[in-house]
Amino acid sequence: MNITLEQAEKAITAAKKKAVAIDTKMNIAIVDAGANLVAFARMDGAWLGSLDISIKKAKTARFFDMNTGVVGELSQPGGSLYNIEHSNNGLITFPGGIPIKNSKDEIIGAIGVSGSAVENDHAVAEAGASSI
Amino acid sequence: MNITLEQAEKAITAAKKKAVAIDTKMNIAIVDAGANLVAFARMDGAWLGSLDISIKKAKTARFFDMNTGVVGELSQPGGSLYNIEHSNNGLITFPGGIPIKNSKDEIIGAIGVSGSAVENDHAVAEAGASSI
Amino acid sequence: MNITLEQAEKAITAAKKKAVAIDTKMNIAIVDAGANLVAFARMDGAWLGSLDISIKKAKTARFFDMNTGVVGELSQPGGSLYNIEHSNNGLITFPGGIPIKNSKDEIIGAIGVSGSAVENDHAVAEAGASSI
Amino acid sequence: MNITLEQAEKAITAAKKKAVAIDTKMNIAIVDAGANLVAFARMDGAWLGSLDISIKKAKTARFFDMNTGVVGELSQPGGSLYNIEHSNNGLITFPGGIPIKNSKDEIIGAIGVSGSAVENDHAVAEAGASSI
Repeated sequence: MNITLEQAEKAITAAKKKAVAIDTKMNIAIVDAGANLVAFARMDGAWLGSLDISIKKAKTARFFDMNTGVVGELSQPGGSLYNIEHSNNGLITFPGGIPIKNSKDEIIGAIGVSGSAVENDHAVAEAGASSI
Repeated sequence: MNITLEQAEKAITAAKKKAVAIDTKMNIAIVDAGANLVAFARMDGAWLGSLDISIKKAKTARFFDMNTGVVGELSQPGGSLYNIEHSNNGLITFPGGIPIKNSKDEIIGAIGVSGSAVENDHAVAEAGASSI
Repeated sequence: MNITLEQAEKAITAAKKKAVAIDTKMNIAIVDAGANLVAFARMDGAWLGSLDISIKKAKTARFFDMNTGVVGELSQPGGSLYNIEHSNNGLITFPGGIPIKNSKDEIIGAIGVSGSAVENDHAVAEAGASSI
Repeated sequence: MNITLEQAEKAITAAKKKAVAIDTKMNIAIVDAGANLVAFARMDGAWLGSLDISIKKAKTARFFDMNTGVVGELSQPGGSLYNIEHSNNGLITFPGGIPIKNSKDEIIGAIGVSGSAVENDHAVAEAGASSI
């Protein structure tokens, strides 16, 4: 029930391919079911500040088993989870983090992508997550 | 004037029972009058990210001797305690943290619950707190 | 392959019984295979500083799949792992942390105990770990 | 003068091959000239605590442009760099971290490896570094 390194590298390869296709430079992080890093890649010229963001997105997606953007909708001022970002040594709650499931629909890890507009980050994460 | 481990475990048992009754999987933390952890339980399959949140909710409730949701009302943009979450290594200020009182109405600790919608978190925390 | 809350609580009960038998007051922490807290208990009057130590011992035992004291033998001045304690947000490398295995000899978590002399800490951890 | 992702992935592939050849399971981290993570891989079943150590070894090797073990010789009690490990959010100063140079002998990054005895960690790091 835990992602393997082979699966993680396959997801990164798929994500990189999508990133190139839409002309972006991304940081791509994969965590396992325990929210611990399994694999990571920073494309040449990608934003340096996105390194930590991509890892935090992957962790956030596994911490709550949902896309990071869904958490962000609930954490706005007045929302039910306002300022949840202060937990777990810092969450990132905008799009770009997606749980990764196996063929039995069990969550085995998550992917986090950062380096462009959040729509692009999400699209690249989706390409990676759906390759498993 | 301090919660005992026996009382803390009683509160966790009551909270777990309520969590099962409403079909949720919770992280449940109990702190003492000094805001230090006394007992903790993570139900099988509960969100991993809720571990830290449940502990921070319990601490927040004891730090200010009020329900966490009350702090959250004051910490909104424009509110008198805006961004108080930055203190104390991170507060959680949405519902799910409740002070625990003894029969003399003295605060002897607090409970923090996380793992579902905040209304459910609060209901489970209430079940735990009222068992003392 | 992950410890359940029921198993974790059984280990804590066994550890507490041993702690009482040798007239000590302990902090007892159980982490899962991902090194995340599953259950915790601080006995009444136990050292407050041992709270964090017990959790770090449990994490350390799972981080390296060995008793914490074994890591400590290697981390002495001149040893091959000198100052490894600076990793992972702080390790504790003296006795009191032990991996927990299932009946198939797979590591499913770890126990960390702190509150007395390290020999006592280890004995109580051993009582907890061997109850699974 | 900076390592590329392609080079970093080549180093990881070489390091993984060496790790398999000597029957070990490693965490392998590559940082660039700015000491920021470029690529990372955790082999299935590798120690969880070695994740952070491998990254800190890579950073330490680039921070001081020397093998981590050399720093460790100087950081012993009485040594000129005693307890330097407290800087930079934690250094790891035992073997397993090696600077990576280009064909002009310029340092373009570093590799950090952790998961076995430090001699094995160093051998795997050497395999990675020398592949560039």
